[in-house]
Order: sequence, then C-alpha cells, then structure tokens
Amino acid sequence: MDYVLSLNCGSSSLKYKLFDADTKQVVLSGLAEKIGLPDSFITQKYPDGKRSELMVVMRNHGEALNQVMGMLHQASIDTNEIKGVGHRVVLGGDKLVSSCKITDDVIDKIREFSPIAPLHNPPALSGINTAFQVMPNAVQVAVFDNAFHQTMPEHVFRYAVPDAWYSQLKVRKYGYHGTSHLYVSKRAAALLGKDASECNLITVHLGSGASVAAIKNGKCFDTSMGFTPITGLVMGTRPGNVDASAVLYVMQKLGLSANEITTHLNKESGMLGMCKFSDLRDVEENMETNDKCRLALDKTVLSVRQTIGAYMATLDGKVDAIVFTAGGGENDTYIRERCLENLDAMGIKLDKAKNASAIGRKGTTEAELTTPDSPIKVFMIATNEELVLLEDTLAIMNGTYNPDHLKMNYSFAKMNKSR
Amino acid sequence: MDYVLSLNCGSSSLKYKLFDADTKQVVLSGLAEKIGLPDSFITQKYPDGKRSELMVVMRNHGEALNQVMGMLHQASIDTNEIKGVGHRVVLGGDKLVSSCKITDDVIDKIREFSPIAPLHNPPALSGINTAFQVMPNAVQVAVFDNAFHQTMPEHVFRYAVPDAWYSQLKVRKYGYHGTSHLYVSKRAAALLGKDASECNLITVHLGSGASVAAIKNGKCFDTSMGFTPITGLVMGTRPGNVDASAVLYVMQKLGLSANEITTHLNKESGMLGMCKFSDLRDVEENMETNDKCRLALDKTVLSVRQTIGAYMATLDGKVDAIVFTAGGGENDTYIRERCLENLDAMGIKLDKAKNASAIGRKGTTEAELTTPDSPIKVFMIATNEELVLLEDTLAIMNGTYNPDHLKMNYSFAKMNKSR
Repeated sequence: MDYVLSLNCGSSSLKYKLFDADTKQVVLSGLAEKIGLPDSFITQKYPDGKRSELMVVMRNHGEALNQVMGMLHQASIDTNEIKGVGHRVVLGGDKLVSSCKITDDVIDKIREFSPIAPLHNPPALSGINTAFQVMPNAVQVAVFDNAFHQTMPEHVFRYAVPDAWYSQLKVRKYGYHGTSHLYVSKRAAALLGKDASECNLITVHLGSGASVAAIKNGKCFDTSMGFTPITGLVMGTRPGNVDASAVLYVMQKLGLSANEITTHLNKESGMLGMCKFSDLRDVEENMETNDKCRLALDKTVLSVRQTIGAYMATLDGKVDAIVFTAGGGENDTYIRERCLENLDAMGIKLDKAKNASAIGRKGTTEAELTTPDSPIKVFMIATNEELVLLEDTLAIMNGTYNPDHLKMNYSFAKMNKSR
Repeated sequence: MDYVLSLNCGSSSLKYKLFDADTKQVVLSGLAEKIGLPDSFITQKYPDGKRSELMVVMRNHGEALNQVMGMLHQASIDTNEIKGVGHRVVLGGDKLVSSCKITDDVIDKIREFSPIAPLHNPPALSGINTAFQVMPNAVQVAVFDNAFHQTMPEHVFRYAVPDAWYSQLKVRKYGYHGTSHLYVSKRAAALLGKDASECNLITVHLGSGASVAAIKNGKCFDTSMGFTPITGLVMGTRPGNVDASAVLYVMQKLGLSANEITTHLNKESGMLGMCKFSDLRDVEENMETNDKCRLALDKTVLSVRQTIGAYMATLDGKVDAIVFTAGGGENDTYIRERCLENLDAMGIKLDKAKNASAIGRKGTTEAELTTPDSPIKVFMIATNEELVLLEDTLAIMNGTYNPDHLKMNYSFAKMNKSR
C-alpha cells in the first residue's frame, strides 16, 4: 500500500494524518502536543474511533516526528510505504508562492523567512529535516499558507510606507491561513453549484488566530492578516488592527525594546489583553457577569463585521457567499450570529435557527445559514487543510500540479451529490 | 461693534477669521504661513475680494498672532471689540471632550496631551497664551477636534491590547477632524431634510490628513484615525493602517529609535513614501506615466472604499448619506468617482456628471452627487470648521452652550431654503 502523510507543525504541536494514496481515505491521524514541555504527549486516532496515547518527552518537532514514526509502526504501518509527505509551511515569503518539492534551496528560503514567522517556520523546518531522515522513500512537499494570497494585486499587498521598506526589506502583506481559505472557497463554490472562478466570496477563518479573505473570481484579492499574523481581526492573544504610533508610544513610555513589545502584541493582546481570557468560549461564558469580557467580545465582533463590510465594498458589493470556518467559525453559533445579524440591508439574511443548529462539534461539516431568499449566502464549512496537503502532494508526485489553483482538479472541490 | 475671532493653528500656519458677533458675517479672514521659517508671511482677505499681504519673520504662533493684530488694526478693526476668540485645539484627550472657556486648568490639560499631538497642541497653546495678552477683553474658548468623537462606545474606542495600556497610558482611539465631521454632518442632515438625530452618515474628510467617521443617529460611532492621526486612510505623508509588527521589524532592521520611525510614519509614508508625491493632484497628474503614482492612487482609493464598506456594516447597512469634504473631497472629482464607482449593489448610485461638475474651487459649496433613485445619497459639502468655532464661542459667551451637539441650535444646521 502507498501512503501520503500530512504534517502540520504548530509552535508547540505537530498534527499528522496518514492517507491511503489511492483512495485518499484517512488511515489514522494524530496530534503531538506540548512539544518542548516536560509533559508532552501524542494522541493517535483511528477511523473506527479507537485511540492510543503516548506520554513521552519531545524537546523539538524533530523528536516529535521520530516518536510519531514509532506510533505508526505500532499501528502496523510500514513507514517505507509512505511515498509522499506534505508539510504545511506558514510563510514562504515572496519566493515560495506555490506548493513544491522540497530541495535544499527551498529549505534555505523557508529559513530566510523565519524571522518574520518565528513561531511557525522553525518548527516546520525541524519537521522537514527529520522527515528526510525517517521517510527517505517519500517525496517531501511544502504547501505554503501564503500561496493562496499571492494573487493579491500590488496596491493591495503593499503598505503606504517608504518604498525601500518594500523593495529592500520585503515589508508587504503576505497573508496567512491560506490553505484553509483555499479549501473552504472550493467547497463554497461546490455548495453554490458554480465554478470557483465564478465566485466572489468572503471567507472568515476564526480560530485562536483569525483572518478574513476577500476572494474575487475564485482568487484571493485581499486578506486581513498582513506582514505578520497580528493584524486584522481581534484574536485570542493578538490585537488585530492597532495604531502603529500607539505601539511606539507605549514602547517609549514603558521603556520596552522592539522585541519585548512584539511579544506583548503576540501573546498578551487581543481578548486576553482586554479581559484575561483568550478563548472565545471562556469570554462568552463570562460576559454576563464580567464587563471586560463583554467589551472584548463586542470588540471582536466589530472587527469581523467591519472586515466583512470592507470586503463587500472591495468586491463592489457582488458577493456570492460568506463562509465561516475553523474552531470558532464552525462551532460558535453565538459569535456567528453577532457577526451577521441585522445586515439584511446589505443582503445578508441570517436564518437564526439554521445558524444555531450548525455545530461542527456535533457533527455538521457544512451548512447554509441564510434564508432561501438571502441575496448573499452564508455557509459554515469545516476546514480541512490536510486534504489540500494530500492533493498537492499527490499532484506533485504525479506531475499534475498546477500553481494556478483554479486549474487544479481537487477532488474535494466536487459537489457532494448526496448533500 | 462686537467681533468674534476664530483661530486655527496648524503646525506651521495660523488661519483666522473675524466675524461680526451679531450677524455672524465674515468681516475678514487671513492666513499666516511658513511660521518658523525665514520667509513667513500673512495674507488677509476681505469679502469684497481685496487682499493685503505682509512679509514678516514669525518665529512662532505667538509672534504670528501679534502680527495678525497689526493686520487687523490696519483694516481699522478695534481689537478691543473682539469679545470672543474660538481656538481650534486638535487633542483634548479624555479630559476635554466639549468646547469650554479656557482656564489655567484647561491649558494644563491641553499641554498634558502635547506628546500625543506634538505638531498641533503646542502651536495652539502658543496662540492661546498670546491671545490672552493681546485680546484681554475677549472670552477665550477652546473647541476640540476630539469632542465630536467622544460618543464612540468603549468597544469602538478601545484597542485589543493589554488593559494597562488604556487604564494607565490612555492609549485609545481619540479621533481627529471632529469639528469638520460635525459641521458636514449637520449640513448633510439639512440637505436630507431630517433632524440630525435621525441621520446615519459616513463622512469622508479628504485633506492632506484624511479620516472617515461613521455617524449613527447624529453621533459619532467610529472614526478611522485613532490614538494618533497616522492611522486609517492612506494620506499625503501618513500610511493609514499598517501592521504594527511590520513597523517594529523595520525599526530593528534599520536600527531606528521609536522617535525616528515615528517620523518616518508621519512625514515619509503615505503617497509620498510610495511615489514621491504627497499631493493628490500631483499623483493624479503623473499616474499615466508613473506606475508608482498609479499604485499610490489605487492604494488610497482602496483605503477609502474599504473604510466606507466597514462603516456601512457598522451602521447595519442603514446609511442615509455619504459626505465628501475638505480639499480632496471638495475638489477632486476623479478621486470621488474612484471611491464610489461600481457600488450600485451596495445602494450607492453615483451620477458621474453631477460628480464631475461639483467642484469647490469653482464655486460649488454643496451638491448631491447621486441619481434620484440612489438608496444612499452622496453629498459634496465644503467644510467650515470656523462656523463651529464661531457658534460654540458665542454659545459659551451667552451661556447657551450644550456639550451634547444634538441639542445645540447651530444656525448653519438650518436648511438653506434657497437651495
């Protein structure tokens, strides 16, 4: 049997999924957590619901991947039969803008962008290096989160700052969560019964990181994250849009270094900074009794609504659908309602009952949340970045990969007739 | 005769207007320019079209005001008859949120916010101090640009940053250009034939500085400038929204101090940073031959359109009118068209011919720019901050001032029946 393995290295986690390369069915999946901490562990799940767990010290993502190999062997997988590995890489910068076979040159370029994505690129590199050692028979493929966003026009991805910041320092909007925005945009087109190239969409990825993409004729036109992933929407610990001069003012007042204040922005801002909770569920649970939670929630909702409005204008008001995805977008019916309510005048007629019943955690993977006469549809679509990793890896192995995703024949983009 | 004098101190200029306190008619007006430079001068204009000019070294705004007194005497004005002076003050912070008689305490509070508005508050203080000396018979009144924005709800004016940045350092959105947004919102209500309290408006102030306000039931709900005036829209030399982490990254890469990079953001960014021109007219003139000008223009337009869209969503899509004002908004028909075209699907039906003929410089002070069936009206309204200075000063002198501007009986807010 031939397998493809998808690897998604987070700052302290490693998600993996093993696929049958022929049927594209999931053989097993797993998650290594708390990498770098003394109580790190791996949970591995099988399609029949069984699971196995391993408590083991994993000091880095390379060690984690070694332990994952052991877990695969225990499940009677011959890891020599893994013929392709798809690595999610958060930032390839301006040089790596489509999925590709990993070479030394690719590794160098990923490393070059580590300073801009310090939490994400180094773990991915650690995973990639180990993957070459432990799966020598596999084609190693990198799938970049910024790839989907590389169709942004120059006036969109540039900032209005001194030209040299762009030409010499590469300061521009790169965008993040692209693999997720790509996946849900294809599924939205399928649900609309249209070709992706005919769809204008606004995709809202609400996880602990959160971003919105404006998609014009199937391609990304703008996205709310920028040079780094702190900007755009209010997030768990990141602020979203904030006056840059205010940040410099605080830096001077508190005598902080640029590194120190960057840490404040990445880890102590967002909802956490406003109300001490970083998880939407905790914030909502406490909002009736804690004014700061109410404030953080209202601020978060405002940032989503304003970005949706901004992107509606960007798409000249011609929007086929708005899609909510990722942890919050798939499960948090309250936040979805707040983000979409009272927008009938802008063509969004939310069906509150449909919204309230579409919960990923309870088994819904895709649902329409608007009334039948709503000019703009709203969908909840469970994201599945691993399927993009799988199919891009297979396509590169088969020589059928096309950097223009509109020309890719993704099987997940086909309408599910049974729906 | 009793007079009221309005004073508007810019970073290197002083605009003044002398009004007949009874008829509210303009007696004369003037502008001192290049204050602090060796070739500073004053131009004074009269309603009959006559003008007089004075070349004189003015090292600061105090000296400039002294020279203005001389110009008034030459025009046979008895400056002892100036009974009220209205000073425009850009930032009163969180303590000065409505027009007031200037006391020592008020001066202290304006000074307290000078570090946040270093180009604007110190000149205003210089003007105020001199005004007390040279017009001892006058009531000195401060009119704050942030006053109009103080109705923003807390979740709107707060940033999603550590709570202490707000509670201890007062980092929040203050908003700027409020006196202009106030004036045009009242005029828009008059043109709509509605009470201001019934109007939802989006007011777009496009000068060398530029900002948008979302006005709900006559009161400011949100505005695009924030803690400082660099944020929001792309401007002549200021960037508008930019990823704060990108700024910190550049600072580290170039080894700049917080002060130095703040200067880059204030004086070397915006259109100037992108294409070497800071004036919209120059950028437009060169856009056919210079790709960087085209880029800067597209970026500027995008920022306006996205802010309009964001504020439409903020107002639940219920918008009576969008108003363009200030230099660019009153005169630049091209930029207005670009900001508003192809938005029929969002209820904005621009009448391109009407737009093309409404030019402040050619004598139009107010015009409707949309087709009769446009669900959302668009107006061009020439701003007139001086009339707000005049009426607030008179109201404070008469004891009829009300900090709730919806309860002020501004004469300029009345419908002009002849229109």
